[in-house]
Amino acid sequence: MAEPTAGGDARFDRVAIIGLGLIGSSLAHAIKRGNLAGEIVGAARTEQTRATALRLGFIDRAEADPAAAAEGADLVVIAVPVGASGAVARAIAPALKPGAIVTDVGSVKQSVIDAVRPHLPDGVHLVPAHPVAGTEESGPEAGFAELFEGRWCILTPVAGTDEGAVARVAALWRAVGSQVDTMDPRHHDMVLAITSHLPHLIAYTIVGTATELENTLQQEAIKFAAGGFRDFTRIAASDPVMWRDIFLANKDAVLEMLGRFDEDLTALQRAIRYGDGKALEEWFTRTRAIRRSIVEAGQA
Amino acid sequence: MAEPTAGGDARFDRVAIIGLGLIGSSLAHAIKRGNLAGEIVGAARTEQTRATALRLGFIDRAEADPAAAAEGADLVVIAVPVGASGAVARAIAPALKPGAIVTDVGSVKQSVIDAVRPHLPDGVHLVPAHPVAGTEESGPEAGFAELFEGRWCILTPVAGTDEGAVARVAALWRAVGSQVDTMDPRHHDMVLAITSHLPHLIAYTIVGTATELENTLQQEAIKFAAGGFRDFTRIAASDPVMWRDIFLANKDAVLEMLGRFDEDLTALQRAIRYGDGKALEEWFTRTRAIRRSIVEAGQA
Repeated sequence: MAEPTAGGDARFDRVAIIGLGLIGSSLAHAIKRGNLAGEIVGAARTEQTRATALRLGFIDRAEADPAAAAEGADLVVIAVPVGASGAVARAIAPALKPGAIVTDVGSVKQSVIDAVRPHLPDGVHLVPAHPVAGTEESGPEAGFAELFEGRWCILTPVAGTDEGAVARVAALWRAVGSQVDTMDPRHHDMVLAITSHLPHLIAYTIVGTATELENTLQQEAIKFAAGGFRDFTRIAASDPVMWRDIFLANKDAVLEMLGRFDEDLTALQRAIRYGDGKALEEWFTRTRAIRRSIVEAGQA
Repeated sequence: MAEPTAGGDARFDRVAIIGLGLIGSSLAHAIKRGNLAGEIVGAARTEQTRATALRLGFIDRAEADPAAAAEGADLVVIAVPVGASGAVARAIAPALKPGAIVTDVGSVKQSVIDAVRPHLPDGVHLVPAHPVAGTEESGPEAGFAELFEGRWCILTPVAGTDEGAVARVAALWRAVGSQVDTMDPRHHDMVLAITSHLPHLIAYTIVGTATELENTLQQEAIKFAAGGFRDFTRIAASDPVMWRDIFLANKDAVLEMLGRFDEDLTALQRAIRYGDGKALEEWFTRTRAIRRSIVEAGQA
């Protein structure tokens, strides 16, 4: 990891944002608030999303066609579920102007690079990015300018990427309130597998388990959710298509971390079955230290 | 489930609280705020806890010996880790006055009833209770009077329990801001296994898995915790001894729910491995409905 070059210009003449969900719309809000673009063009497939975006005023112009949005843009932000990144790159490629910077906001990086890079013409710079921020809400009405404040944005440019392009993307994320770090894409995918993808998978699982409960038990699980379940349901309310794509795109790292988790869960299950209170207490004491570290890191 | 008899007197001449951790101290704060007791006596094993409690002023008198605290009390609240409930009951039994009400705050009910009931003399009423509220903090300094507001308190009296005693305990919990419900103790233990015990076990597991990571990866997991992991670390910072006791005391229900969870996790793991995006998306869509129900139930 390294701090990317400082001093890039955070302001762009024209920014195109392809996809106006939670992240795309929040970035547009933040760019508008910071006056970081001469024009913000948004692309969305549905008429309803485009109308909502124009009504809320976080974009200046709406396009149904990603290529029409990307045409003439200095910065193109791909903000669609990661499984659609390749198709978007293919669609916008002919419209990209020389020297344009293409970036994204996906939660998986290597597979996005593999899907996007082959489509981009020479002279266009790819600077993959992952703002580690979000809520369980989705859609163009969920966005807000403050989403990225105090959060990390991880850039994963491949070796040889134009440093000026990396610096400008870093400057943009800093201008919307984030701290910026750079990382190798595969390493990023492993870190996120444990900090984000596995927690989401587990939350989805346990909430799904609750949906299979006998009816009375399920109603009571909802009624008495305050005991811990509530936090899981919030995580498990995240966008289904976005998360489907993340698990498929980061399969290897997720399966690796899931394997480790499963071994540990089996060990605790065994401790419960055989009444090994000492093992349980030792385990539960050890996990407290991690919480303290997170509080100290200012990420709590 | 049924609403317990309304109209019980929430005020007691003397309340003894055995154990001054998060729940015990919060209840003391709330009783003091509401002027619900003539005197609040607190029992704690360590001199430090007793001194802290007296300094913060949420009890009127501190005792090292639970029996000394319980003597002459109209209401005795056992607020220790559930595994210690039986020992406390045995200790206080000789000091209990006729007509006294004994209650508790444990997250498991059947095992507490089994451990406490045999020690209580005739003419003393046992009204087991579980306030479904908490934070990841513990100890006498963590308590605050508002902890129970808007939260459920579940009473699990066995058949034949004096209705007046149940009504008074219900009235106390309502007076500190809770909604009160009654439930069969074994049924309570099954509901809590899915809504609280299993979520805690899983949070403890995944945070423990993270503590085993290679050093760099672990530092980064802390740094980028915002992606979901953070919520798990908060849950996994809960009191180790309290949770050790809960898992041991509610073994059967926890293992039952853990078995169901494990089957579901295996199914999702398989869907990821074989790229079954349809199965993932369907599962993730279903879990959203539960979140909506919780928001509608006002427990979000």
